[in-house]
Amino acid sequence: MVADLLTPEIGEMIAQKRLAEARAAMLDLQDVEIADVLAELEPDQRAVAFRLLPVDRRAEVFAYLEQDEQETLIEALTSEQVAMLINEMDDDDRVQFFEDAPEELTAGLLKLMSPEQRRLTQQALQYPEESVGRLMTRSYVTVRPEWTAGQALDHLRAEGRDAETLSVLYVVDAENHLTHYLRLKRLVLAAPGERCEKLCEGPVVSLNAAEDREAAVRLLERYDIPVLPVVDEANRLLGIVTFDDVADVAEEEVTEDMQKMGGMEALDMPYMSTGLWELFRKRGLWLSMLFLGEMLTATALGYFQPEIEKVTVLALFLPLIISSGGNSGSQASTLIIRAMAIGELTLKLWGRVFLRELMCGLLLGLLLGLIGLARIHLWQYLGWYDYTIRHGDTTLSYHLLAITVSLSLVGVVLWGTLMGSMLPFLLRLFRLDPATISAPLVATLVDVTGLIIYFTTALLFLHAVLG
Amino acid sequence: MVADLLTPEIGEMIAQKRLAEARAAMLDLQDVEIADVLAELEPDQRAVAFRLLPVDRRAEVFAYLEQDEQETLIEALTSEQVAMLINEMDDDDRVQFFEDAPEELTAGLLKLMSPEQRRLTQQALQYPEESVGRLMTRSYVTVRPEWTAGQALDHLRAEGRDAETLSVLYVVDAENHLTHYLRLKRLVLAAPGERCEKLCEGPVVSLNAAEDREAAVRLLERYDIPVLPVVDEANRLLGIVTFDDVADVAEEEVTEDMQKMGGMEALDMPYMSTGLWELFRKRGLWLSMLFLGEMLTATALGYFQPEIEKVTVLALFLPLIISSGGNSGSQASTLIIRAMAIGELTLKLWGRVFLRELMCGLLLGLLLGLIGLARIHLWQYLGWYDYTIRHGDTTLSYHLLAITVSLSLVGVVLWGTLMGSMLPFLLRLFRLDPATISAPLVATLVDVTGLIIYFTTALLFLHAVLG
Repeated sequence: MVADLLTPEIGEMIAQKRLAEARAAMLDLQDVEIADVLAELEPDQRAVAFRLLPVDRRAEVFAYLEQDEQETLIEALTSEQVAMLINEMDDDDRVQFFEDAPEELTAGLLKLMSPEQRRLTQQALQYPEESVGRLMTRSYVTVRPEWTAGQALDHLRAEGRDAETLSVLYVVDAENHLTHYLRLKRLVLAAPGERCEKLCEGPVVSLNAAEDREAAVRLLERYDIPVLPVVDEANRLLGIVTFDDVADVAEEEVTEDMQKMGGMEALDMPYMSTGLWELFRKRGLWLSMLFLGEMLTATALGYFQPEIEKVTVLALFLPLIISSGGNSGSQASTLIIRAMAIGELTLKLWGRVFLRELMCGLLLGLLLGLIGLARIHLWQYLGWYDYTIRHGDTTLSYHLLAITVSLSLVGVVLWGTLMGSMLPFLLRLFRLDPATISAPLVATLVDVTGLIIYFTTALLFLHAVLG
Repeated sequence: MVADLLTPEIGEMIAQKRLAEARAAMLDLQDVEIADVLAELEPDQRAVAFRLLPVDRRAEVFAYLEQDEQETLIEALTSEQVAMLINEMDDDDRVQFFEDAPEELTAGLLKLMSPEQRRLTQQALQYPEESVGRLMTRSYVTVRPEWTAGQALDHLRAEGRDAETLSVLYVVDAENHLTHYLRLKRLVLAAPGERCEKLCEGPVVSLNAAEDREAAVRLLERYDIPVLPVVDEANRLLGIVTFDDVADVAEEEVTEDMQKMGGMEALDMPYMSTGLWELFRKRGLWLSMLFLGEMLTATALGYFQPEIEKVTVLALFLPLIISSGGNSGSQASTLIIRAMAIGELTLKLWGRVFLRELMCGLLLGLLLGLIGLARIHLWQYLGWYDYTIRHGDTTLSYHLLAITVSLSLVGVVLWGTLMGSMLPFLLRLFRLDPATISAPLVATLVDVTGLIIYFTTALLFLHAVLG
C-alpha cells in the first residue's frame, strides 16, 4: 500500500517542520490514501498532518478514519476547526461518526453545527441502530415527470453539485411520493426536448428507512444498481443509500457472521481497535458456555468409568471418534449457514437438504470407518500396538475393537453431519440467526452424543468383557 | 420474494396455454425477478416462458440464471434463437457463461457468433481463470482531453447507448493509453465550452487484466468508485469492471473462505447445484486428512495407557480438556483470518497480535481453569461423584485431580489461542491462503499437544500413583 511507503517520510517531514513538503506529498494522494497515512502516524503528528490539508478535503479524509482515530483528531482541533469539519461532512458520514462517539463529545459537537444540520443529524439518529435510516444520505436530486430532459439537466447544474451521486435521479410527485427513477445515462442520451416521464423507469425498488440495513445489502446485490432510494411508510422519498456504504455494511455483516461461526460474540470494532478486556469478554462468554456444555462429557464418561476400567484401550480412541463428529458437523453447518446467508437456501428446502446430508454423512462415515478399520489392523499387523483385549480370564480379538471403533465412526459422523445441517434450519424456524450455530457449538453438542454412541457400540461388541 | 408468489401462477398459465397472460405477468417484473421465476419452473416450462420474452430482454434475464439452468435453456432453443441470444449478451456475461460451459456446447456456440464477438470472446478466455480479464467488459466510452464538454456529450449520445455504464468515462491519448478519468456528473455540470482536460481527474486507479479478480474487490472497496478501468502491461485501456460484477465476486470469495474455514475444500458452485459425489469428495478429502492427523491422539494416548489404567478418572476429562483447546483456537483463527482478509492485519503486525493473544489466552485459560476447579469441587461436595484416586494402597485427594485438570486447561487454552492466532501468519509468510487454517485443523493440531499437556501435568501432580 502507498501509505506504508510514504508514512515514514511524511512523519519525518513533520518532525523536521518541513510542513509545506508534507502537505505537497499528501496532496498527491487520494483521500483514502491520505487517511491511511494519518492512521499510521503518531497521534500528535496526525493532528498536524490533518491541519495541513485543505479544508474541503478534510471532511472526506476524516470519514475514512477509524472511530478512535477520529476522536483523537477532534480533541486536537480548535472548536472552530471542528465546526468547519463537521459542517463540511457528508450527512451519512456524520451520522456514522455520531452514532459511535461518546455523548460528552457529541453534545459539544451538536452546538457547533448549523441548526439545519443539527436537526437532520438528530433526526437520522432517531432511526434504530443498524437501520437503513442511519445509512442514508439526503444529498440526492429529484426531477419532475413533466420536465423536459433539457430542463432536468439545467436543474442538475443548479442543484446537483453537492449530491452524493447523480447516476440515478428520482421522480417524485408534488407530495414527494416516489414514483419512478431516471438514469443519468438515459437523460444525457435523450433529445433535450424529450419529457422525463418518457425517459424514466419503474416500478422503483426502494427501502424503508426503518428496515435493517442488511436489506440494503440484499437488494443492491440482487438488482445490480449503484444506489437505492429510501422512503417512509407513505412512500415519500427520504434519502438514498449508495453502493459504497452498502459494501461497507456487507463486509461488516460477513465479519460478524464469521466471528459467530467461529464460536464467539461478534466484535463490533476492528480486531486491533478492540480492547483486551472486550476481546476477553466476547470470547470468554461463549467459551465458558461451550465449556459448561462440554462438561456433560465428563458426566457421561462418569457412567462409563467401569467400562474404561475394564477396557482402557477404549479411551485411546475417544478423541479420534468425537473429533470426527465435530469436524463433519463443522463442515455441514458452514455450508448450510452460508447458503442461507446468500439466500440460496430457505426453510422450505430443509427436507431436500436432510436427504442430501443423510447420504453424504453416511458416505463420509463409511470413509472414516474404513480408514479407522485399516489403522487398527495395520498397527496390530506391524506389531506397533497390541489391541487384544484381556480382562481376567477373557481375551477378545482386536477385530472386535476395530469393528467397535469403525461402526462408531459411521454413527458419529452421520450424526454430526445431520446435526450440523439441521440446526441452522431449526434456528431459522424460530427466527433466530443461523450463524449462531458455530462449529464449536456443533462439536460440543456432538461430543456428548458421540461418546454415548461409542460406548453403546462397545457394550454391544465387547459384551463378553463389559457385560 | 416475488418469484415465490408468482411462479405457481405463471406455471399454471403456461400449462393451460394462456401464453399471452404469462408473458404479461412476466413483463411486469424486473429482469432478475423474471430469472427467479424461470429458475423455479420445470425445465420444459422454463423454455416456453423464456421464448415468451421479448428478444431484447432475453439476454439480461439469461445472465441472471445459474449455469445449469442456462445450459438446459440453450438446449431447448433453436440455433437461430441461440445465435440471437448469444450475440445480444453483454460480453462479460457471455465470457462467464463460456468459461463454465462444456466444450461440446461452446464449440457450437462459437460458430453462431459474429466474427468480431467470436474474436473478443476467445481473447477474453485467454486470460487466466479468476482473472480480471475474464470479468471485464469492453462496453465503455473514452473521451479525448482536447474535446469540450459539449463535444464529449455529443460523443456519448452517438456511442454511449450500449455502454455498460457512463458514470465514469476514461480519457486516453492517441495510443489508447489511459491517462485520466472523467465523472459523468462533472461533465454534465460543466459549461458546454469547458475542455475535458480541465474536468478530468487523476491519477487513475486501474487494474491489470492478468491480475487475480480479488484485486478488483479490494480496489473497489477501498476507493469507493462504481467502476474500475482495466489496462494491459503498457497501460493501454482494455475494458472496465463494474461494481455489480465485483460484488458477485466478493460474495463468492467470502463463501470460499468460509467453506475453507469450516474445514473443507471450497465448492465452486452453489450448494444445491453441487452433485452428491462432488460434495462428498470435497468434504471427504479434508475430513480424512483431519482424521489421519487426529490418529496421532490414539498413538499418543497409547503411550499413556498405563497411566489411564492406574487412574481411569483421568479419561473422564479428556474430551473436556482437548475440546477447550480446539474452541479457543477456533476463536483466535477466525478473528485473525478475517482481519487479514479485510486488510486490517498484515504480516508485520504478528508481534503485537502475539502479545494480545498471549494475554487473552492466559485470561481465557484462567477462566476455564477456575470453572473446572469449581466443577470438580462441587460434584465432590454434593456427593455426585467421588474423584478420590485410589490405586493399590495409595489414596490421593480429589484436590490433586482438580488441580491437574485446572492447570491443564490453562495450558491447553493458552496453547490453542496461540496456535490459532499464529498459524494464519505462518501461512501468510509462505504466501499461502490463511483461510486454509480451518477451525477443525486448529482443533486437530491442538488435540495431540493438548493431551500431552494434560498427562504431563498429571504425572507431575499424581506422581505418588503414576510415578
